[in-house]
Amino acid sequence: LNAFDPWPPVPDGSAFGLDNLPFGVFSHPAVADGAPRIGVAVGDHVLDAAPVLDDPVFAAPTLDAFLARGRALWTETRARLTELLTDAHYQGSVSHHLVARAEVALHLPFTVGDYVDFYCSLDHASNVGRIFRPDAEPLLPNWRHLPVGYHGRSGTVVVSGTPVVRPCGQRRPPGAEAPTFGPSMRLDIEAEVGFVVGVGSPLGEPVPAGSFADHVFGVVLVNDWSARDIQAWEYQPLGPFLGKSFATSISPWVVPLEALAAARVDGPAQDPAPLDYLRRAEPWALDLSIEVALNGAVVSRPPFATMYWTPDQMLAHLTVNGASTRPGDLYASGTVSGPERGQRGSLIELTWNGAEPLTLPDGSTRAFLEDGDTVTISATAPSATGGLLSLGEVTGTIHPARPT
Amino acid sequence: LNAFDPWPPVPDGSAFGLDNLPFGVFSHPAVADGAPRIGVAVGDHVLDAAPVLDDPVFAAPTLDAFLARGRALWTETRARLTELLTDAHYQGSVSHHLVARAEVALHLPFTVGDYVDFYCSLDHASNVGRIFRPDAEPLLPNWRHLPVGYHGRSGTVVVSGTPVVRPCGQRRPPGAEAPTFGPSMRLDIEAEVGFVVGVGSPLGEPVPAGSFADHVFGVVLVNDWSARDIQAWEYQPLGPFLGKSFATSISPWVVPLEALAAARVDGPAQDPAPLDYLRRAEPWALDLSIEVALNGAVVSRPPFATMYWTPDQMLAHLTVNGASTRPGDLYASGTVSGPERGQRGSLIELTWNGAEPLTLPDGSTRAFLEDGDTVTISATAPSATGGLLSLGEVTGTIHPARPT
Repeated sequence: LNAFDPWPPVPDGSAFGLDNLPFGVFSHPAVADGAPRIGVAVGDHVLDAAPVLDDPVFAAPTLDAFLARGRALWTETRARLTELLTDAHYQGSVSHHLVARAEVALHLPFTVGDYVDFYCSLDHASNVGRIFRPDAEPLLPNWRHLPVGYHGRSGTVVVSGTPVVRPCGQRRPPGAEAPTFGPSMRLDIEAEVGFVVGVGSPLGEPVPAGSFADHVFGVVLVNDWSARDIQAWEYQPLGPFLGKSFATSISPWVVPLEALAAARVDGPAQDPAPLDYLRRAEPWALDLSIEVALNGAVVSRPPFATMYWTPDQMLAHLTVNGASTRPGDLYASGTVSGPERGQRGSLIELTWNGAEPLTLPDGSTRAFLEDGDTVTISATAPSATGGLLSLGEVTGTIHPARPT
Repeated sequence: LNAFDPWPPVPDGSAFGLDNLPFGVFSHPAVADGAPRIGVAVGDHVLDAAPVLDDPVFAAPTLDAFLARGRALWTETRARLTELLTDAHYQGSVSHHLVARAEVALHLPFTVGDYVDFYCSLDHASNVGRIFRPDAEPLLPNWRHLPVGYHGRSGTVVVSGTPVVRPCGQRRPPGAEAPTFGPSMRLDIEAEVGFVVGVGSPLGEPVPAGSFADHVFGVVLVNDWSARDIQAWEYQPLGPFLGKSFATSISPWVVPLEALAAARVDGPAQDPAPLDYLRRAEPWALDLSIEVALNGAVVSRPPFATMYWTPDQMLAHLTVNGASTRPGDLYASGTVSGPERGQRGSLIELTWNGAEPLTLPDGSTRAFLEDGDTVTISATAPSATGGLLSLGEVTGTIHPARPT
């Protein structure tokens, strides 16, 4: 690899500039004999972190040990990376540890401990309520009092690009008494934002909302694939199970909270006022602009800043009963939907349960996903330097169901 | 330590005889400098497995790597242990690796991957339905078609003996519109049986019911502590969350499936006949006799053989959508309740939602658990030699809520 000129190695307008510096796990035949290890995305390249930071924690195949180091060391590492990538003194030595992003394979960046999925969008919860209970109050009585959530399957969280095989399962045709078995006919997406816990908390010690940034390292994008027909039949009374557990995809680059300083905004006003343990101490709503593309056509632009419950509140709620957390715990926001039709983060909302199919640029229509469809969720945030930084993307293609 | 005489080192009538040989993780100041490692319970002792089996996999602080080895090596290890503990030739050398069970500390025996909790008792589901929906059909329409289940929090699975701090959370007093915050006033137990996955399965490959024993290593007892008031307020529409996630206790000794050969019985007849993927290939109902003791007094004797859905069916269902499994995944049966009043596995059933409190031997009454209460769940199974073997016990004491 040659030394870069100019330095730093960031093309004009790149959304992976020095104000971003997300962490991931990559492999490349020319680096460490192809073994997965930690990299930092910068411009169109990946920086091999272990040699330039001279720290074996980055030679690991997961971020787990780095995540556990905590806020002070995360900050120190970020400052050191910025120094290495800006000071021309390091240009020669650092250049040798950059590889083209287009040439690397990206891996699941951390070992997922527990995976929790919330339900924090007022617009999403209201849309779902209107679709399934058209004659009733759309929001259930608990919704404005707590961030509703449940545990998902951590073992089936996969990295962006992993094929998603259409799941089989039980679903009951409309009007039928008994279920049938077969491939899901109502395969959907959920565009979400996920929060990656770095520093855990012991059993019995709730994490106050104000301690959010001491525990959470950063953010990924999440597609919580959902088989609506399987889910509808199974979910009473204990919640979603097989309708969700076949795959949850996450973006490969974990964007540190520090990179999102300029994206922090006050969350929406909450009425009624939440109980004390849920009171926000600092603004942790995030002004992320999400795009959902189906086969390359943008079908929705969900605005994350509209989420009723903010991630500091989610963590406070998750732990208020004394539940412990671990490095690598992942909790997601739930489907991000804004108030406009073009801001809905799931097909069930975009097509109003299939009644109003989407028309794609090729003239085809979609109520739910077909085999071969590719869904890509991306997002940007305002950066500290006045531009935009990218949260990367999470993508997945639907493969046909396994023959039964 | 002295050589035992007679040999094998099993007192008459011990429920930890050579037909049991469960695996756990123990520590003892005189063994490996007090580091946790794998032991096998035999009689009143624990056998330090690493030196006698001459295998470093047993010097680990968890069963994880041993679990992943699979059925053939599990069988071989069991046969070797039997040989070591019966052949007088080994008496001298093996004796030196036995420590008194009363002197060891027992640890969480494996790293819990995903924790799934099912709802497989017809009597339990019917009781809960009658309590909460007295005017409706007790069972929901899906219940006889599939083993209803959900994911719990794997990070708060704790070993027997770990104190259980009364959780705080939101609960809505009867008749009130808004919730209040504070300690759960309706803290309950759920007596369950848990299944420990040894050999995992890849994403996209369902595990047929007939392959159950190729994947599941053994069995533990589970107390799925439940805060009924928190659960009642939060659980719509995504299922239990904080009402369960504060602690789930498991027994320390994992009893291998092979030890339970004499306990295998046909499961109850199922009507309607389950879909193909749920058909039983072999008898995997287990005739376990469970006892639930509250402060030393037996309050229930749930019969595990009555469970409508059997563990082979649970695993087939859990994976039919292509969900992968890992060594250390734990799935539990849900509350075990039999048809008789004295066979109910939760206080909410035993006291009919508090309306019919239990009277304890000291004259006190209980609707739900009080601070200081100790709950111990134990179980026995018929053994291959015509006696009984023990699954050990899972116990926990309620500590007062953290001050708020």
